[in-house]
Amino acid sequence: MKNSFGNSLTVTLFGESHGPAVGAVLDGLCPGLAVDEAYLERQLARRRPAGETDTARTEPDRFQIISGVFNGKTTGTPLCIVIPNENARSGDYEYGKARPSHADYAAFAKYHGCEDYRGGGHFSGRVTAALVAAGAVVRPALAGLGVRLGTHILQCGGVDDAPFNENEIEYELTQLEQAVFPVLSEEAGRLMRERIAAAKAEGDSVGGATQTAVTGLPAGLGEPWFDSVEGLLSHALFSVGGVKGVAFGAGFAGTDLRGSEYNDALRMENGAVKTLTNRNGGVNGGITNGMPVVFRCAVKPTPSIAKTQQTVDFINNENTDIEIKGRHDPAILRRVCPVIDSVTALVLYDLIAGRYGTDCFVKGIVP
Amino acid sequence: MKNSFGNSLTVTLFGESHGPAVGAVLDGLCPGLAVDEAYLERQLARRRPAGETDTARTEPDRFQIISGVFNGKTTGTPLCIVIPNENARSGDYEYGKARPSHADYAAFAKYHGCEDYRGGGHFSGRVTAALVAAGAVVRPALAGLGVRLGTHILQCGGVDDAPFNENEIEYELTQLEQAVFPVLSEEAGRLMRERIAAAKAEGDSVGGATQTAVTGLPAGLGEPWFDSVEGLLSHALFSVGGVKGVAFGAGFAGTDLRGSEYNDALRMENGAVKTLTNRNGGVNGGITNGMPVVFRCAVKPTPSIAKTQQTVDFINNENTDIEIKGRHDPAILRRVCPVIDSVTALVLYDLIAGRYGTDCFVKGIVP
Amino acid sequence: MKNSFGNSLTVTLFGESHGPAVGAVLDGLCPGLAVDEAYLERQLARRRPAGETDTARTEPDRFQIISGVFNGKTTGTPLCIVIPNENARSGDYEYGKARPSHADYAAFAKYHGCEDYRGGGHFSGRVTAALVAAGAVVRPALAGLGVRLGTHILQCGGVDDAPFNENEIEYELTQLEQAVFPVLSEEAGRLMRERIAAAKAEGDSVGGATQTAVTGLPAGLGEPWFDSVEGLLSHALFSVGGVKGVAFGAGFAGTDLRGSEYNDALRMENGAVKTLTNRNGGVNGGITNGMPVVFRCAVKPTPSIAKTQQTVDFINNENTDIEIKGRHDPAILRRVCPVIDSVTALVLYDLIAGRYGTDCFVKGIVP
Amino acid sequence: MKNSFGNSLTVTLFGESHGPAVGAVLDGLCPGLAVDEAYLERQLARRRPAGETDTARTEPDRFQIISGVFNGKTTGTPLCIVIPNENARSGDYEYGKARPSHADYAAFAKYHGCEDYRGGGHFSGRVTAALVAAGAVVRPALAGLGVRLGTHILQCGGVDDAPFNENEIEYELTQLEQAVFPVLSEEAGRLMRERIAAAKAEGDSVGGATQTAVTGLPAGLGEPWFDSVEGLLSHALFSVGGVKGVAFGAGFAGTDLRGSEYNDALRMENGAVKTLTNRNGGVNGGITNGMPVVFRCAVKPTPSIAKTQQTVDFINNENTDIEIKGRHDPAILRRVCPVIDSVTALVLYDLIAGRYGTDCFVKGIVP
Repeated sequence: MKNSFGNSLTVTLFGESHGPAVGAVLDGLCPGLAVDEAYLERQLARRRPAGETDTARTEPDRFQIISGVFNGKTTGTPLCIVIPNENARSGDYEYGKARPSHADYAAFAKYHGCEDYRGGGHFSGRVTAALVAAGAVVRPALAGLGVRLGTHILQCGGVDDAPFNENEIEYELTQLEQAVFPVLSEEAGRLMRERIAAAKAEGDSVGGATQTAVTGLPAGLGEPWFDSVEGLLSHALFSVGGVKGVAFGAGFAGTDLRGSEYNDALRMENGAVKTLTNRNGGVNGGITNGMPVVFRCAVKPTPSIAKTQQTVDFINNENTDIEIKGRHDPAILRRVCPVIDSVTALVLYDLIAGRYGTDCFVKGIVP
Repeated sequence: MKNSFGNSLTVTLFGESHGPAVGAVLDGLCPGLAVDEAYLERQLARRRPAGETDTARTEPDRFQIISGVFNGKTTGTPLCIVIPNENARSGDYEYGKARPSHADYAAFAKYHGCEDYRGGGHFSGRVTAALVAAGAVVRPALAGLGVRLGTHILQCGGVDDAPFNENEIEYELTQLEQAVFPVLSEEAGRLMRERIAAAKAEGDSVGGATQTAVTGLPAGLGEPWFDSVEGLLSHALFSVGGVKGVAFGAGFAGTDLRGSEYNDALRMENGAVKTLTNRNGGVNGGITNGMPVVFRCAVKPTPSIAKTQQTVDFINNENTDIEIKGRHDPAILRRVCPVIDSVTALVLYDLIAGRYGTDCFVKGIVP
Repeated sequence: MKNSFGNSLTVTLFGESHGPAVGAVLDGLCPGLAVDEAYLERQLARRRPAGETDTARTEPDRFQIISGVFNGKTTGTPLCIVIPNENARSGDYEYGKARPSHADYAAFAKYHGCEDYRGGGHFSGRVTAALVAAGAVVRPALAGLGVRLGTHILQCGGVDDAPFNENEIEYELTQLEQAVFPVLSEEAGRLMRERIAAAKAEGDSVGGATQTAVTGLPAGLGEPWFDSVEGLLSHALFSVGGVKGVAFGAGFAGTDLRGSEYNDALRMENGAVKTLTNRNGGVNGGITNGMPVVFRCAVKPTPSIAKTQQTVDFINNENTDIEIKGRHDPAILRRVCPVIDSVTALVLYDLIAGRYGTDCFVKGIVP
Repeated sequence: MKNSFGNSLTVTLFGESHGPAVGAVLDGLCPGLAVDEAYLERQLARRRPAGETDTARTEPDRFQIISGVFNGKTTGTPLCIVIPNENARSGDYEYGKARPSHADYAAFAKYHGCEDYRGGGHFSGRVTAALVAAGAVVRPALAGLGVRLGTHILQCGGVDDAPFNENEIEYELTQLEQAVFPVLSEEAGRLMRERIAAAKAEGDSVGGATQTAVTGLPAGLGEPWFDSVEGLLSHALFSVGGVKGVAFGAGFAGTDLRGSEYNDALRMENGAVKTLTNRNGGVNGGITNGMPVVFRCAVKPTPSIAKTQQTVDFINNENTDIEIKGRHDPAILRRVCPVIDSVTALVLYDLIAGRYGTDCFVKGIVP
């Protein structure tokens, strides 16, 4: 499947940063879902550069849906969305000098010199615009089943945001929908932006982590082996630019606990089974347990920095230095959040459709 | 695909903890690979309980290969390996009381009461015996291409092992092959076992983390989107008992670094492209870069503890307490290492076969 | 996927004719389906040699379900069924002399000498015992939704059976369930057996064709491109021993008609849309239209004949003659019918589960 | 996968007849393949209406490759090709009246009224323009390995063309490359066109059959079960407009033979294993045997005819008559040949890449 993901709903990505367009095909959509172009535009806007913390390359993201929608609704046949590239400046890139922590050399090893290297080509974060658009097609369908989700910057440049508070999670998700800089603590957000600005001033970049929560999922999604909820989500999430780790619930931090501290006690609450804590992140044995699915992604610092770096010229097989030009983000944390939301939405839509059937989104049939 | 994984090489798992057997089917194997039953037995032995830190249930793992091998070699047709269950004590389990942090309630939600609940059924770590056997079929083929791998306990009960030292990694992998308790620092191993014993004495359990390294992989494996090396490995790794996080290279810890600190500088070394550090864990843009692939798994504390815990009876929809009987591991870190090795081997075999063809393992054709 | 088939429900086959066993894994089954071992045995009996028209090798087909069933019902986890080989006589086979129209040389080209050649190995019709058992697991679930199916010998040794009569198809399906030699016209069956006996007496074999009908399917199954009902069925049917052609409705014979003669006129009947004829075989644009799905399979004459044949020794690269010993069927038409039934059932189960969800078989939720 | 096909190379189709465009994504292409736009245009031209035997709707097929090609060569990343619709006349279609033998009612059952019905929507033969373009991307790569293929009209309107002559097949394939009306016998072609014209004059249509040959394939491609060469080809071929049957070698006609007549005797010829006849169509046990792969497709008469037909209005649930307007082909046999060629090329490319690796097409590494 390579650049495709999903069984019942499959998303296929295509496009290069400086080619004519990026885009996605969504196959397996429930027929009859309203496609709200204004909503798509809002989601794309969340991913676009905004102000001093982001790259200066701004694309208008004028998307075109060229199949699969008729009279404003999905037909159920493959939906292809194309987003032309309008603001590419290819002169900024030279071939053969590997940008450290970028895919340049790995791409050369894989495509042996045939890759479109301009702006990172198919490896560019630009492709995530198509991913965000694809996610925006299915998010309203999930919302129609009562499934909500959101992502905030949990950590950036050494500053920590408050993690999701399990008792206020619905409120926090609503907050995040409006947020320009998606954090739960305004003060943390302010400090993060300071750190980003400081790094930028020094020609450097920062990394961090995100945290995502999904509420309203039925218990019983996922498979015990391989196609666990964790396995499927992580599989897709590692495609998102800079993600180098995925951890559910208490994640790596929780491994110092003893079993008696870590285990989530269960209780009946209004006739439903709940856990008092959620260190398992809503998944047991690969299957949703009805609690919010909560996970973190580690996001490495943006590889493109202005500082001079040691590297090789893999065409001439010699050592050299590199000063990266072009327009780059000193931190991609803000822009990565809507991408993670989209990936998450696509994976969950697929899991729900696989269990309850492709039409459940218009019928509202889930337990 | 659900309980299957892999494209060119597909592994399918089956079996329940207290049913007649667990097993695996491997489809897509290169014909002509020697199948060394003694090697399989050694790998299975690494996973078996050993001494006071593990469960008292010991299975002899008398496996039978019932297809796909002829005259001691793989035929290239599906290889089915069956491992009968011989030491199951089903009387220890009662249905309806959810063991906290176990899959009991999630399984009920998914299978609505039809699941074989005895000993965790299909969710049991017992199924990993089949996974280890499957991995042991392909590891010699990887070794034949110069690919080596190994996993150690990076952290357990709050004690840290030394991480892989990039300059001695081949030596360390050799060490791990012999190790009964797989750590790089003997002293750390001694302390870990003390913590495990202490937890056991208190009817409790501990968690931790593992670290895996793979050397000798060609650069250029993996895909930019979705089927990244990280995505494929994590997809499969989250099936391993208790794994709640997967992170590559510097992982979550590395996200506090600035780009100038995190980026791996490149240098020519004996005509080959190398990086001076390996914070990216051998993968850029989803593709191997020729450096060792290094990752960590967070392993939650064993859910089964002797202490009384709050839970629900999901059949009678009421709150209750549970005291877990049966025979359990106070820590699964030691036993999880060969399982992670096997999963890793299966995923990498698949990636190599996908790129270089199904027969490359007997031909030795990789760059 | 290779030796696997299906998306929502996946069947994986393994085993060799003269190895320890053949078998299948079914993954994705609805939990809670009753597994009636007596019914499985009856289906296996339909495939077993019976009397003078079939091979003298008789296997008792003592199957074992080693996972996925608990308390007589499917658990929803992978169901592995194993059928040991008990009556193999390997001395009958010699390696290197290609039996004409058999897979011997093709297998050598693929597996370069590692294949288990005894009795055809993994290519043997013996593997279809596992396929029949797998189909027998899901057929009652289809019946529970009102889906019925059956296959008769449409042609054998030059003798034609009556094709399905669209007005009596339910009655004919009932007849076929009981039939030892599955034909609709008893007289045709008598003549066919004569032709088979005559061929056998001359050390020769005969071929023919089958016709299958499926009733009770909802309209709207299948996909416009690639995963059409015809595409999915034919994909799986070509695995059945000797099948060299698959045609729907009027098939090849119908292509001489003009559009005005071929087209199926539509009419309302008791509030439902019907067609007056069914030359399209119940499928339009790859999608079921609510009429019975009807198709034919061309089955070549059994390759193994007693007559001396010209061939090559592909080990010594020389021309030679071959006299095939061993025990073979002068016609496989009778035995192929339950295999086609099983393949059909597995494909349709998968299509229904993909659209209506994995649990629809116990809930009875289809339109 | 639905509207996608292939494992190592995956093709995904999208688009509607009267929407903005049709198109395809090819994922898994070998990097470095020359993409010759003039060759693509020639293949598209073969599929376009030509003269009095075809529909009057002529599309210029001005395709755009919007990803995956750089400097005239494939990059190895997903190649998306878009073909805008420029000559759609939607006013010709009305919704609710099912055109007999068309997908209208089946589509309504599947998409419950959300389908883009104009011009057949996603079911339209228009989508095959994208399929032809996709095939044209990979055919030169196959040719580079010595694999050639071609399709002729074997039968049309009751007139038979000469079947491929096994001794002149390379010459015949060359002939077909140039042919405007692809037949092997000019006289047969002349008669066929007469029959088509006669049918057209009466407001009717004709069907027929095609025959395809592929030479130069290595022996050993395909799988014994499910992913047989026959299974994979037929799976994809049934997507082609009007194909209702697929048969290999002697197909349905060969089933009247006895084994001694049908079996292909083997002989050594210039050091290679050959068969004296090719009734098995180059495939044994699902695996190529080194002989040409030869198969036939049954193509039903074009459903759209000018004559008044009985049908239903499935919106108002009532009987009615229909007179189909719009521009249609009285026979699609000529136009179907390049589509079958493309489908065949895509399937074979995938099989070769799966066995010999994704890069074999630029390296020329096959046995």
